[in-house]
Parts: sequence; C-alpha cells; structure tokens
Amino acid sequence: MGGCCIYSGNYLIPPHDEKLTEYKVTMKAIEWLNDRVRIIDQALLPLEEKYIELKDYLSVARAIKDMNVRGAPAIGVAAAFGIALGVKDNKTSDYSKFLVEFNKVADTMAATRPTAVNLFKTVDRMKKLAATIEDVPQLKKLLVDEAIKIHMEEIESTLKISRFGSELIKDGFAILTHCNAGPLATAGYGTALGIMIYAHEHGKKISVFADETRPRCQGAKLTVWELQQANVPVKLITDNMAGYLMHSGKVNCVIVGADRIARNGDTANKIGTYSVAVLAKENNIPFYVAAPTSTIDTSIATGDEIIIEERNAEEVTHINGVRIASEGTEVINPAFDVTPHRYITAIITEKGIIRKPYKEGFGI
Amino acid sequence: MGGCCIYSGNYLIPPHDEKLTEYKVTMKAIEWLNDRVRIIDQALLPLEEKYIELKDYLSVARAIKDMNVRGAPAIGVAAAFGIALGVKDNKTSDYSKFLVEFNKVADTMAATRPTAVNLFKTVDRMKKLAATIEDVPQLKKLLVDEAIKIHMEEIESTLKISRFGSELIKDGFAILTHCNAGPLATAGYGTALGIMIYAHEHGKKISVFADETRPRCQGAKLTVWELQQANVPVKLITDNMAGYLMHSGKVNCVIVGADRIARNGDTANKIGTYSVAVLAKENNIPFYVAAPTSTIDTSIATGDEIIIEERNAEEVTHINGVRIASEGTEVINPAFDVTPHRYITAIITEKGIIRKPYKEGFGI
Repeated sequence: MGGCCIYSGNYLIPPHDEKLTEYKVTMKAIEWLNDRVRIIDQALLPLEEKYIELKDYLSVARAIKDMNVRGAPAIGVAAAFGIALGVKDNKTSDYSKFLVEFNKVADTMAATRPTAVNLFKTVDRMKKLAATIEDVPQLKKLLVDEAIKIHMEEIESTLKISRFGSELIKDGFAILTHCNAGPLATAGYGTALGIMIYAHEHGKKISVFADETRPRCQGAKLTVWELQQANVPVKLITDNMAGYLMHSGKVNCVIVGADRIARNGDTANKIGTYSVAVLAKENNIPFYVAAPTSTIDTSIATGDEIIIEERNAEEVTHINGVRIASEGTEVINPAFDVTPHRYITAIITEKGIIRKPYKEGFGI
Repeated sequence: MGGCCIYSGNYLIPPHDEKLTEYKVTMKAIEWLNDRVRIIDQALLPLEEKYIELKDYLSVARAIKDMNVRGAPAIGVAAAFGIALGVKDNKTSDYSKFLVEFNKVADTMAATRPTAVNLFKTVDRMKKLAATIEDVPQLKKLLVDEAIKIHMEEIESTLKISRFGSELIKDGFAILTHCNAGPLATAGYGTALGIMIYAHEHGKKISVFADETRPRCQGAKLTVWELQQANVPVKLITDNMAGYLMHSGKVNCVIVGADRIARNGDTANKIGTYSVAVLAKENNIPFYVAAPTSTIDTSIATGDEIIIEERNAEEVTHINGVRIASEGTEVINPAFDVTPHRYITAIITEKGIIRKPYKEGFGI
C-alpha cells in the first residue's frame, strides 16, 4: 500500500490530501462495511441513485452479472469483497474443508463476467494467498485484509494518476473528455475524471465538456453524474459537437482513459476517441491519455494488433430501449477504436507522465 | 422548367432518365393531386409511413406548422400547393375580391414558420404573379401551374446536382454522409442523397454510411429510411464512428448538404459537419458539399459572419422524449457549425461542380 493511505471505516484517508474530504464522502461506488458490501446501482444511474447492500458472496456475484457494478477495476474490487464475505461466512476451522468452500466461492466470482481481466487477477491473487497458510482464523483475517488492500491499491493508483495529471491542468482550463473513466468504473478516484476532480479539489477553476458517448451514452449517464457529485462544473454535449468547441477555441485540453495501450503508445479506447484526438491535433490542443501502467499490453507492438469488438445492432438502432431507426436497419457498431500514438501528447500513469517515444518511456 | 421534365399525374417524367422510374415512384414527400396535396408525415418517420391528404389551404398551413412536412425547399413547395388549393376554392370571378381572399391565403402560408427563406420566396413569387393579370379564370390556372412549376424547379435543380455529383462517384464507392439532404427535405431528388441515389440508379454499386446525427437523429430517422426506399445499401453509424471508418480505409468520399455558404466557400451545415470534414482531410478523403446556388449567401464574405443558433437543452438530455442525463444537467446545443472552405474539395451545384477558389467559381 506504500504507506500512502489509511483505510478507516468506510472511507480512505489520504494523509496528505485533507482537501479531498468532500469528494471522498461522495465517492461511494463500492464500500466494504465489514459484514456486507455496499454499492451504488450503476444500472440505474443517473436517473436513480440507489444503493444496494450485498450480504453474501452470491449477492455480489449477481450484482456483477447484472451489471449493477461495472467497470473492469470496480468488478475486480467487487469480486475481492465477494470472496471476503464468503470467507467470513465459512464456519469451518479445518483447513481442507475451508479450502473446498473457499474455492467454490472464488470460482463463482470468476464465472460472473467473461472478459474483465481484473476479475481473474483478483481471484488468482486471493487463491494464491489462501495456499500460503493453514491456520484458518489467521488466514480468514489475511484474506479479508487482502480484499481491502486490492481496493486501496486501485484508489492509490488512480490517486497518483490524478496527482500527476493535475500538474498539466492550469487554472481556468476547459477540459473535454470522452466516455467514462471515473470513480464508478475504477472503484477509486478515476483516471481521466480523477485528474479533473483532483484539480478542482485543489482549487483550480476548471470546467468540463462531456461527450455523451453514443451508443451507450456513458458520458451522458455516468461522467456528467460523477462530476456533478464532485461539484466540478460540467456541460454535456453530443459527440459531434466536440470539434466545433475545439475550433471555437473553447477547449484547453482533452483527457480520456484507455482500454489497452500498445508498446508504441497506440491506445485503444471507447469508439470516438480517435476522432477526438484528430480534432485536437488539428486545433493544436493537447490530447492526454490517463491510465494505470497495467493497461499497457507489452505483448503487442502497435495498435494494429488490437482486434476491434463489434457489438449488437440494437445499441445503435435504439437509445435506452427506444427504437430510433426503422426495422431491419443495418449498422456498424465497433465498441472502440485505436488512436495512433502520434496524436497523443502524453500518457499519464501512476508512475508519472510519459511522453514520446512511449516505448522508452514505458521502460520496455 | 428548361424542357427537361414533364409533370404527368402524380409523377415527374424526366425523358432522358428512364432508369429513375423505380425511385420516382417511391419519392412521395409531397404530391399535387389536382384537388388535394398528399404528403408523407415526416414527424412519424421512420417508425410509421403514413400519408396525409390535405384538402384545403388551412390543412397545409397546419401541416407545415406541426412539421409533418419539413425541410426548407419542401416547405416552399407545400406553401405553393397550399396557395394553389386556396386559389381553387376561391369562387369569385371579381378580380378585387379574388385578390382579397388570395392575399389572406398567401399570408396564412407565410406565417406558418419563421425562418424558412424558401417559404417567403414562394409567397412573394405567387403574389407577383397574381398582380399581373385580372382575368380570374385565367389567373387561377396560371397560379396553379406556377405552384407545380415551383415543385418541378426544385426537382430539376436537385436532379442536376445529382447528375453533376454522380460524376464524382466511382463504381464500388462507400460514401459517408451526415444529417439529411434527401428527397424529403428538398421535395426533389435531394442534394447529397440525390447524388447517391442517382449513381445507384445508373448502375454504380455504391454503399452509404449514414451518421445518426445527434441530437435530433435526422440521419437515423430520415437518411437511412430514404436510402432504403431507393434500395441504396446503407449502414447506420453513430456520429463518433465516422472517423474510425475513415481511418480504417472504408470510406471513399464524404457528401453533405448545406444550410448556408459564404462567398469564400465556408459552409454552415448541421452540427458535426466540421468534424467530419477535418477527419476526411486527415485521411485524404474527398469532402463534397452538395447544394443549389440559392444556398450561397452573397452578402457574407466568410463563415465567421454566420451566427450559430443555440437550441434547447432537452434535445441533448433526452432522446426521443426519453431522459438520458440527470435533472439539471447543463448542455451546449449549437444547431450547426461552419466548415472552413479549405476542408471542402468541391461544391456541387445545379450549375456544375465548383472548385477552389470558390469566390471565382461562384462568379461573384
């Protein structure tokens, strides 16, 4: 944990960041309450702000499956807490019997979603820990502590990104962002949004333009809501307005998150990110990517190796379940695109701000 | 009318374009049926294809007001037909009394919408004609013929644009368009869409990517439907996918319409057009504007003089009446943007294809 933060009750206390108090309290994506897990129901946001208390591991598994909690890091944290609840409810003191029940819980969590890497990393990590010690009472405590540690690591990593990134933000900046890279998705301070919230909490007068981010509208639904929670001034725009605002001189920088980064810095992120990057370059506006170094996929040299997921047509022909286009309309629906590294001014990680050439900056 | 077309019953017969038959029959935005006007209810498209028969001028006025018919040229044609119905129902043979009733009808049509220039041009033209001859039976015939002529002029102008533009389209082209510049809006062949339909009808194997065009989704609702009617292969995309497709080498050219063109070629069009133009330039893809020369505003030197209309917040926070963003969300909602002439490869008008420098090409 690096000695940076103290986990006290429900909230994280970063000792050198007293100014973060207000934001901390509103950041309730997921909380460990010793005998239960409290999450905000992301499926209902922003129209309804409802919290769900999950009292056993099966309830946590269902919440992940039903996408009440979403975002790869948040899913990882939820899985850790789900395992912790399973551990607490595990009444045997026999190590072998304990392990049988423990593995059942861990495997249930792993089966909730097919693609979130953080989920499998979490389950592996908890399983490895369970193999290290046979004293059941001591192991149970260690496993619960490990779940909390996983959550804190997410918070610390995003907090570091937020600190480094905020150095790039000047007083009065208007920042444009695309999709959602905030506290909800990261179960921490957020990456792109973390930077904005951190800058705001430390007295910089900033404002944000949030692309609605069709087709799923994560910008309209989650980014706007999260910034409102943190009292950061935000205006919602449709995706096709970003260029107009840049050309009108109303945007000082762009910050987005990332789904995967190649060795050369090419970055896969939500569909539309490439367009925002090109428009930023054309208008001489810095374009920053904020992501933990765990997002860097050292197995791929360039973005050309990233396969673009094609999603279902209804996301485009419908909006919130309401049909827009005629029956039988064909669509293209790539979930993300790749922004070539030449459009990226810098990549903001928990280790610092990395500039071109990225391969050298990543130390790989 | 230039001797190009013959108005026969409901449909236009262009003598040198037998191949247009199929398309002609499906193009039913507005029709003159001698004692009534038939329009497709654009407010219900594409989910419902309902035709409305308007039997008197007041019904036509209501249809324009309620936006059952929309698009500046289509409104102009509807107003002309509304006046023609009023003329037919005018039973007096006394010229002075005829004029009193005629002016009442014309003024009612002029009051339906505040900003459509075509509407006022049409009313002025009909009024001027009414002042030229005192023989009421002869005048009535002339006025009805003039209304039909106005419609045919729109059809011919857009047909010429379509012909000129299709010279730029090669077999196998994938064309990207933004918003809607088709038969519905123009009461003719369309401008941007007219070119695509014309190329398709003349045997070129083309396909189209239609931007949905948030916030009002004219692309998803009208462009896709119109191209489907004309059997042109079309795929719907969200606005933020256009750049991805261009960067992937899947787009051969872009064609859009125009709301207003300055003397230097700077073009105001639906919000998002500027972004599409920048993305086309970055990917070396030709970007064409298709518009009649009447769209050129010779009173303004550059696009800087064009004031951008800001529309209501609900268009952004809601989609088809369904709320997306939280209550109290602030938005920016410019209705259009200006694409500087340097991004425009050519402007396709009824007089021919005009290239840079536009001022010289426009002959002004």
